[in-house]
Amino acid sequence: MEIRLPKLNRADYERAQRRLDNLTKPRGSLGYLEELAKQYVYITGELFPSLPLKKHVYVFAGDHGVVEEGVSAYPQEVTKQMIYNFLAGGAGINVIARQAGAEVFVVDVGVAGEVEAEGLIKRKVCPGTKNFLKEPAMTRKEAETALQVGFDLATQAAEEGVKLLIPGEMGIGNTTPSAAVICAILDEKPEDIVGRGTGIDDQALQHKREVVAKALSRYQFKDPIDVLAKVGGAEIGAIAGLFLGGASRRVPVIIDGFISLAGYTIAQALAPEIKDFVFLGHCSEEKGAAKVVKKLGLRPIVDLSLRLGEGTGACLASIIVETALRILTEMATFDDAGVTKGNEFEE
Amino acid sequence: MEIRLPKLNRADYERAQRRLDNLTKPRGSLGYLEELAKQYVYITGELFPSLPLKKHVYVFAGDHGVVEEGVSAYPQEVTKQMIYNFLAGGAGINVIARQAGAEVFVVDVGVAGEVEAEGLIKRKVCPGTKNFLKEPAMTRKEAETALQVGFDLATQAAEEGVKLLIPGEMGIGNTTPSAAVICAILDEKPEDIVGRGTGIDDQALQHKREVVAKALSRYQFKDPIDVLAKVGGAEIGAIAGLFLGGASRRVPVIIDGFISLAGYTIAQALAPEIKDFVFLGHCSEEKGAAKVVKKLGLRPIVDLSLRLGEGTGACLASIIVETALRILTEMATFDDAGVTKGNEFEE
Repeated sequence: MEIRLPKLNRADYERAQRRLDNLTKPRGSLGYLEELAKQYVYITGELFPSLPLKKHVYVFAGDHGVVEEGVSAYPQEVTKQMIYNFLAGGAGINVIARQAGAEVFVVDVGVAGEVEAEGLIKRKVCPGTKNFLKEPAMTRKEAETALQVGFDLATQAAEEGVKLLIPGEMGIGNTTPSAAVICAILDEKPEDIVGRGTGIDDQALQHKREVVAKALSRYQFKDPIDVLAKVGGAEIGAIAGLFLGGASRRVPVIIDGFISLAGYTIAQALAPEIKDFVFLGHCSEEKGAAKVVKKLGLRPIVDLSLRLGEGTGACLASIIVETALRILTEMATFDDAGVTKGNEFEE
Repeated sequence: MEIRLPKLNRADYERAQRRLDNLTKPRGSLGYLEELAKQYVYITGELFPSLPLKKHVYVFAGDHGVVEEGVSAYPQEVTKQMIYNFLAGGAGINVIARQAGAEVFVVDVGVAGEVEAEGLIKRKVCPGTKNFLKEPAMTRKEAETALQVGFDLATQAAEEGVKLLIPGEMGIGNTTPSAAVICAILDEKPEDIVGRGTGIDDQALQHKREVVAKALSRYQFKDPIDVLAKVGGAEIGAIAGLFLGGASRRVPVIIDGFISLAGYTIAQALAPEIKDFVFLGHCSEEKGAAKVVKKLGLRPIVDLSLRLGEGTGACLASIIVETALRILTEMATFDDAGVTKGNEFEE
């Protein structure tokens, strides 16, 4: 996989800054909306993107062998059941995508057993991962294939004119490998990162922490792909690939929740300059997310105590990115509107 | 003015809670979105509101005699110039309202001099307030009329089927009376509340604080309307009236920025139970806003460091309220989708 990212041009950022400073508002008064607009122009090089933005959500579905350790409040069959729900338009991400004007694609990258459903994108890397407490979750080859799936979907979307990418996921048990990946990549401790996922009790939480800690002590990791293979999952790899593929084509990608953060840490370990190509949609309520977000130095667009995943928070945030671009492109300038400029304090 | 508010029924809130708990997601996993949906149902009594919501933004424009003390970075003529910009669709609020599917109305409640423009709603209470450092900003009668303007527009909107109200404002200098109102109503100190407004420097900020402190020491206030009259402004009064009028018809109102908070404090002083009828759109960057928000115990829907006013932050937040209602009304239940319920931890 190609992971050299395009070089961005600071002049694009400054062009956006100049335009924003000429709009009929006190300079900087639209705060983080102005930052989002500048960053979007910096990533894409487009000062006047065509609106509404074409947005794709990819919901990567995968299963996890580690669920046999009792780390989730939901049974594994729910991964498959939810695929049908996504395809029927009834899940949280479908609803939010309708509000955002985004199209949702569902990708089987690692579901246990066969799933046949119209509209499902079939890119199965493995039939669920192995239980990483006992053996590596995936082979290195499977991990690389997972990355490639996300990468290819992103570059294909770029060809189709998509201007904003949103990674989503579904996979019962997937906060467990996500926590393991985050601990391994960012050198964090399981007690600070492992959380309740869909809603386990204190005892199960303690057990989940021990599972992650034991797994981490079991393996040596030689590189980020090795982490993904040994304690990750197919959807985490596909998400990492989506970040890299989007960035390679200068299409911004919005980080969603905890699993998305795990995918992002893999992508950033492979290509540190990726930070310039992404937005953070929100800060998940899952324990550990806030610490990771702080460590990575990212600012969430919204903060609504979400912990559903599926891409929901990032998709909601995409509306705010689009609003920022409307400001940039549709607001009148002082000259256009015949409004007198203020004598503002220069910070 | 009638300020008895309707009694809300806790059963409506619980009906929404039950529906949310049956949707295909871990219980509570949509965090504050679920709270917004429940609160909306509690206020309106409608479990399945018709979407998209009909939303009105009222931009109340007024001028302020206190600008002669040099408290703003912009000249007074900008109030009038911006009215034309609003009516032409080029201001920040117009752009955000297009994104939100909201209709914008511009109301002259207190602009200095005559303004003639097609589409302008003319409800002038006074031709700009007096300089409150020297004499009361308005008479009691003017303050009452300002409240009535907002109240009447809200009740008229309710008759027309509006389901969400957004107060906005424009008025060069209006952070100064807003700070004075907030200090008087909430018993705060000018040094904690007075901020840079559109962007004044340190020296002007110090002066602005002194102006507010002197004005506050000059007057005795006998009730909230007296505060509004002596150190407030017409648009602050109209905003307070909009909160009260919306609440009286069970139409939720979204608090915007600093001026909107000032209007809200007046409304709350007149009818403390109004807290149940409002949402806080965002937390303004204007100094003092964060303190006020904390004191009032309100949670902002977004936090994007905005300080433009006009209703921009509230209007942006209205998209998130609408998204919450889409979740409530459009998501599949576990039964509908054939998804197995989890065995979640009861908090």
